[in-house]
Amino acid sequence: MRLAIALLLGSMALPLAAQAQTREDLLNDGKNPAQVTTYGMGYHQQRHSRLDQINRSNVRRLVPVWSLSMSNDVGEQSQPLVYDGVMIVTNVRHTTAIDVATGRMLWRTPVEWDPATARVVCCGLSNRGAAIYEGKVFRTTIDAHVLALDLKTGKELWNETFADWTQGISSTVAPTIADGVLITGMSGAEFGVRGFIDGWDPATGKHLWRRFTIPGPGEPGSETWPKETEHYKHGGGTTWMTGSYDPELNLVYWGTGNAGPWNPTVRPGDSKHAASVIAIRPKTGEIAWSYQWTPGDMYDYDGVNENILADLTVEGQPRKALIHADRNGFLYVLDRTNGKPIAAHPFEKVTWAEKVDLGTGRPVETELAQRMRKGETLEVWPGLRGGKNWPPMAFNPDSGLVFVNTLHDPRSYTFNNEEQPKPGMRYLGLTINTPPKKPGEPWGFTKAIDPLTGKVRWEKPSTDYPAWGGMLSTGSGLLFTGRSTGEFQALDQENGQVLWSFNTGTGVNAPPVTYMVNGKQYVTVLAGLGGLPVIAGAPNIRERVPTGAAVWTFAVMAE
Amino acid sequence: MRLAIALLLGSMALPLAAQAQTREDLLNDGKNPAQVTTYGMGYHQQRHSRLDQINRSNVRRLVPVWSLSMSNDVGEQSQPLVYDGVMIVTNVRHTTAIDVATGRMLWRTPVEWDPATARVVCCGLSNRGAAIYEGKVFRTTIDAHVLALDLKTGKELWNETFADWTQGISSTVAPTIADGVLITGMSGAEFGVRGFIDGWDPATGKHLWRRFTIPGPGEPGSETWPKETEHYKHGGGTTWMTGSYDPELNLVYWGTGNAGPWNPTVRPGDSKHAASVIAIRPKTGEIAWSYQWTPGDMYDYDGVNENILADLTVEGQPRKALIHADRNGFLYVLDRTNGKPIAAHPFEKVTWAEKVDLGTGRPVETELAQRMRKGETLEVWPGLRGGKNWPPMAFNPDSGLVFVNTLHDPRSYTFNNEEQPKPGMRYLGLTINTPPKKPGEPWGFTKAIDPLTGKVRWEKPSTDYPAWGGMLSTGSGLLFTGRSTGEFQALDQENGQVLWSFNTGTGVNAPPVTYMVNGKQYVTVLAGLGGLPVIAGAPNIRERVPTGAAVWTFAVMAE
Repeated sequence: MRLAIALLLGSMALPLAAQAQTREDLLNDGKNPAQVTTYGMGYHQQRHSRLDQINRSNVRRLVPVWSLSMSNDVGEQSQPLVYDGVMIVTNVRHTTAIDVATGRMLWRTPVEWDPATARVVCCGLSNRGAAIYEGKVFRTTIDAHVLALDLKTGKELWNETFADWTQGISSTVAPTIADGVLITGMSGAEFGVRGFIDGWDPATGKHLWRRFTIPGPGEPGSETWPKETEHYKHGGGTTWMTGSYDPELNLVYWGTGNAGPWNPTVRPGDSKHAASVIAIRPKTGEIAWSYQWTPGDMYDYDGVNENILADLTVEGQPRKALIHADRNGFLYVLDRTNGKPIAAHPFEKVTWAEKVDLGTGRPVETELAQRMRKGETLEVWPGLRGGKNWPPMAFNPDSGLVFVNTLHDPRSYTFNNEEQPKPGMRYLGLTINTPPKKPGEPWGFTKAIDPLTGKVRWEKPSTDYPAWGGMLSTGSGLLFTGRSTGEFQALDQENGQVLWSFNTGTGVNAPPVTYMVNGKQYVTVLAGLGGLPVIAGAPNIRERVPTGAAVWTFAVMAE
Repeated sequence: MRLAIALLLGSMALPLAAQAQTREDLLNDGKNPAQVTTYGMGYHQQRHSRLDQINRSNVRRLVPVWSLSMSNDVGEQSQPLVYDGVMIVTNVRHTTAIDVATGRMLWRTPVEWDPATARVVCCGLSNRGAAIYEGKVFRTTIDAHVLALDLKTGKELWNETFADWTQGISSTVAPTIADGVLITGMSGAEFGVRGFIDGWDPATGKHLWRRFTIPGPGEPGSETWPKETEHYKHGGGTTWMTGSYDPELNLVYWGTGNAGPWNPTVRPGDSKHAASVIAIRPKTGEIAWSYQWTPGDMYDYDGVNENILADLTVEGQPRKALIHADRNGFLYVLDRTNGKPIAAHPFEKVTWAEKVDLGTGRPVETELAQRMRKGETLEVWPGLRGGKNWPPMAFNPDSGLVFVNTLHDPRSYTFNNEEQPKPGMRYLGLTINTPPKKPGEPWGFTKAIDPLTGKVRWEKPSTDYPAWGGMLSTGSGLLFTGRSTGEFQALDQENGQVLWSFNTGTGVNAPPVTYMVNGKQYVTVLAGLGGLPVIAGAPNIRERVPTGAAVWTFAVMAE
């Protein structure tokens, strides 16, 4: 297969609008480099900016211009938004507006929740960001609310409860606005829940629709669940990472989490649409198509990782593609019009499947996976954290490469068929075993990969801790990413060389952004150790890296 | 009185020693600019460094080189120590060692205490720093312990309880080592306690001596307390700021806090040695002399502010001086050989006293103070926070000026004679009233003052919040200080002009330090809003400035 790649910028271009945070502002994110109005730096979630003021030759003079404390100790995972010089950041405790020019806090609105909510959260108390639209800021809360604040004042405009958290449902996801509809997801697949996506009227908070990711009796996909039980009600498939959006096809691409419980022997079959991507109509939540990364998932292979939209040239033909590096270790290119796979190559060590059959669209399980499926306790790669976890990769449309932090970390599982779902309680049906790390074996890699060929352009091992940071690509060939040990770094996209590094003094896992205010390019990232790097990361990270919480903003110092 | 000023550097000079953190290292702090081995940057607590790599022309290129999270949300007030490239910082929750070159945490040892301790703390849970000596780090804890850690590993070597915190005694003070004795103070004058200073063997933690600041029956000064009651047992005079030390005279100069209760009508008399400075012998705690700033204190005029030692030329004669800006609004110069006042001038608005009579050594009370003493509720300046609170000023021996952040903030008091002391409970005997701020009136000033004449060289109003930051003077004529709104700034000592400012994103109240590692000058300060700026500062500071906690280290970026 001979492949050539090109970005077709035109397909999403719409004229800039005068009104603040309009539909056009959102459509133009990723093209108007002054703003960051969507999660992913564009509905396509490429996390690539054309900005090139900061470049290979001056990045050594990149310095912090301000920092703002986020007053938190459980980790920062949020991507900031920037609109007309005002930054919006979230964490689990509050929503904050900042004047980018000075770093001054304009307002901070607390999020109140019962501390007991922590018991229904698998992986740390966190939040991944806000959406903005028509003068409002939208976010979800750990106790399953969605709310709107006034962008100018931070005053709460509406607040809706979309689930009872005591039943195991929480939310960390950044919402999105697509076709005028506010769309939110949820978490809880370790607590016996059934995943869903909600549509809301952003003006009023009126609930418009709910789409369950796990089909009920009679719905398409219900044949992949046991008929004799109501297991689908606990089938997982949660929706805790923001979907991308193609305004032209008018489809939102939303990943779904692991099947529930992890133990598959109590739910033989594919367990659709867990560990999948579903393409939905934003006005109704109707599922246009779905593709399952991991049929019958038994590894905690959440399929929620970002779905990057790019217009690629494949065998001379322009293709509307969707690029996705799944926890299951495969890097996929799908046709986003219909969900058919174009390419699928391992990007990390994979032992559960030999390959993905592009004809059937299904992975070909190894003997190891088949023996596991029968209940044997065996070591499998990737482990439950995946070949990559939630920190989003970036795609540079000029080079056609994705830049990704990977996890190199197996697990084994011992199934327990006695466990029953109880409301709001852990429901996994197994115990997890962590094989001892071999001396000298890396915890992960930073890699540049051609998604169509799977060819690794370069890779850099992470020897001390898993590579667990979001990515940002720039038009000047820089790559920004953080490390759990506190460094925020700029790498050369050509070879992975670290060109610049700053020690923020607490783990950096959140995705960076870049933007322009008054003609000057800034880079911003949140620092704050927490979430899985603390809960289940490499040993003793708490002894080496402090908890903390700050927004960091950098610019190049004039010579 | 014609006065000339000169620093006699020679008087404390001793040869540098080879062994780590020796007596000589401590004696040389303030002269060896590579290290910061004592609280105050020298036993004299001048907070002046000869370093001049960072100067007026390159300070605009001062940038953060690293930050380390302090994982705390109640405020940072500590002064770091630096020895051979290792920094020691404390807060109420832990002691941390940092590699200055990289900002990496070398170790962090938690301090465990019952959260209920907060009830016996008047002004926030804080800690002001450590002492180092012969391979050990010493600190006090909020629940009235003193302990030693191994400087290399952070391992606890000994831990002694010096009071029962439930009785109202706590500690925030940085210890000092003088003549081989570890000396600690304590807090609690709002809780009916009797102040004291302790001497310890730093090697073993053996308790050597205790000196009560409030004399018992028959002791000198007991005549200033009611004879018919045991009031002295609740007389206050706590010791919560570190004393300075003259090794040649072998005297430690330690300030004492307000008299207890604040209401003076139940304890007519001077209430010695509250609101005083006592000169003690480090080996025994014996009081060589005392001087009372505020006889019969009824305003909460703690006399604990730093006592800066400087060798001045007064009327052509060299004088061993002690410079002190008291909460009571007067800037004193004492003869530190005997405690006799040489000069005393108001440095802020003062309405309780007309002047200090240098002959008697006593303040001359105004009619307002005499009426207050009889129980009238009147507005008095300074208010309970003083003309200056604990953040230490700096003294530049070259110019002879002190640089001080002042508070411009009156109070009135209504006495209540019914209140009785109860163990570990508030015991003030009055209610405090805060007059409304007049529009446009500053909250305080940054001032450069000649302590011998009281002449203000320049002053800069603080219009939004009280000026509440420690000071650092450098040989290049720079002045470093922080603001409760987050800015860490460099001012020109000549005129107060702000030459450089960096927004750390949380309040900066702690005293900065400067030092040299591998030939490079660094400046370090802790940021973290807390303590009195939050509890009783200007209105709504929490709405404008986030809590947070980090060590910030700055250096000049090469051109």
